[in-house]
Amino acid sequence: MLGKVPPRILRQIVFRNLGAPSNRVIVGPGIGIDNTVISLDGFKIIVSMDPVTGAKENLGKIGVDVSTNDVALSGAKPEFLLVSLILPPGTGEESIRYIMRQASSEARRLGVSIIGGHTEYSDIVENPVFVGTAIGWTRRRRIITSGGAKPGENIVIVGYAGVEGTSILASDLEKKLKNMGIPRVIIKRASRLVKSISVVKQALIAADYVSAMHDPTEGGVLGGIYEMCEASNTGCLVDLSSIPVRSETKIICEKLGLDPLKLISSGTLLATVGRDKTVKLVEKLRAKGFKATVIGRVTKGVKKICLFEGREMEIEEPPQDELWRALSKWA
Amino acid sequence: MLGKVPPRILRQIVFRNLGAPSNRVIVGPGIGIDNTVISLDGFKIIVSMDPVTGAKENLGKIGVDVSTNDVALSGAKPEFLLVSLILPPGTGEESIRYIMRQASSEARRLGVSIIGGHTEYSDIVENPVFVGTAIGWTRRRRIITSGGAKPGENIVIVGYAGVEGTSILASDLEKKLKNMGIPRVIIKRASRLVKSISVVKQALIAADYVSAMHDPTEGGVLGGIYEMCEASNTGCLVDLSSIPVRSETKIICEKLGLDPLKLISSGTLLATVGRDKTVKLVEKLRAKGFKATVIGRVTKGVKKICLFEGREMEIEEPPQDELWRALSKWA
Repeated sequence: MLGKVPPRILRQIVFRNLGAPSNRVIVGPGIGIDNTVISLDGFKIIVSMDPVTGAKENLGKIGVDVSTNDVALSGAKPEFLLVSLILPPGTGEESIRYIMRQASSEARRLGVSIIGGHTEYSDIVENPVFVGTAIGWTRRRRIITSGGAKPGENIVIVGYAGVEGTSILASDLEKKLKNMGIPRVIIKRASRLVKSISVVKQALIAADYVSAMHDPTEGGVLGGIYEMCEASNTGCLVDLSSIPVRSETKIICEKLGLDPLKLISSGTLLATVGRDKTVKLVEKLRAKGFKATVIGRVTKGVKKICLFEGREMEIEEPPQDELWRALSKWA
Repeated sequence: MLGKVPPRILRQIVFRNLGAPSNRVIVGPGIGIDNTVISLDGFKIIVSMDPVTGAKENLGKIGVDVSTNDVALSGAKPEFLLVSLILPPGTGEESIRYIMRQASSEARRLGVSIIGGHTEYSDIVENPVFVGTAIGWTRRRRIITSGGAKPGENIVIVGYAGVEGTSILASDLEKKLKNMGIPRVIIKRASRLVKSISVVKQALIAADYVSAMHDPTEGGVLGGIYEMCEASNTGCLVDLSSIPVRSETKIICEKLGLDPLKLISSGTLLATVGRDKTVKLVEKLRAKGFKATVIGRVTKGVKKICLFEGREMEIEEPPQDELWRALSKWA
């Protein structure tokens, strides 16, 4: 088994062993919770920590993106980052330089300062591990979470479903996909999608309008919608055909027999927004070059309903991510 | 090569790739710098991030200790902790529970709240990796660093040299040490020293008196003294015979031909203190059950002089840690 530890273990073990209680913690650890919020007399500090173990070529960039994404989802700008780099013995200077230059350039693009961390060699890792802790702060009263959706609001997706998974599949299964007859140019374009897994800029634009934000990682866009509605105690009605999927994603998923909507999807932003603010939100995002699409509505109750080819289906739990299934079968 | 990346690589690669500059960073990354300090209009936030890759039996406890230590060295109480746990596939629930219970109980003892992080399975690690990010905050103007020592002040050590290294050697070389004729009871006592690698309580007591604090990790107590003086642009005169060493450490180091003063030494606190405040500091620490010893003096210039059996020796650079030499030879 790879990837996230199952929710049951998190609930029964991890969340029950959290040291001393603190009344400064406004948003603490939980399933589908993207970040932690601490209150310090007038300030709120937003933090998020994420390890990246699967990436090779783009480790530095992805490492910066995943933790800064989570802070930006609160509506606060990620401003600082700590980085722990754990390297297999014998990792050359060139590799360290490559990772750090990439991290630094992505951090600069996002206006994030790398302020500390640790770099060490360890023989218990086979490939470099990048762990980032991103920190932001705000004086705003309202912190956006994945749990703020209200019945009647629209669900908006910014970007395309399954971009992250598409790029991982294209890198890790390159040969396989070629042998299956997928054109080289499609595979190349797909693997380059790794460059679009930051949602920091989109999230900060959206922050002024939305009631909830979430980034769908494992379990894909469907999993992300499920988690956001669960966290908000709502249901939803989503038209699956309206969710944008890139042609590279479609082609690769079709060949491998995967559902793009259940494919790991950092780089996609989900948000809920009042009907009166929806047009404004979509226009603002489009003006900055981001694709924004209304894909459904938040409903009362807890039923998460999808429309697919005219039929209604209920999502009863967040789907298993398609990525692990594909990699364990083909990699 | 294991352990910390050499200072040259940090200076030439890591510290040159730090993303966007920020004028809120009062203390940023540097050699021998224990933590980062961010200034937010009246507040100071102190953060530190540390991975633990070498420990097995006491991973949860050590993981909490190393990062909270670094925050406490600033004089601010570590209050929050984020934890990333990266587990080899197949790690059982019992192991996760063991690590998290240990981490939670150590965090509770120190008054630290575990507020977030990430737990995942990854096949690029051979043993569990624990990465902690500790956060503290203060309204104090003065933040203690390793660079605040002034000529004429006393150098004080709290605790004993080489405790951490002793416990690692006793665990990792248990058989070897038995074969060398070291009594089982000594090895057991030595391996239990892992329980005393937190300096949080000592550092918070000392904070009211000292001009600089540092915890000697790799390079041992001698390395720690060197780093503290370098960071302060001072020299020192240290009487090596006055540095307390536990009998377990003496016995094990003698057998393996190691110098206890160059042996990795988390759990030991180094501080510099004005002569007028020295007695008060030592008394306060002793009253709380901590061994505190004056071992030398901060001097003008940059020469770091040690007195050893009546002779003067100069330390010209931080020593290589004895641990890696021992483990690569015997483990």
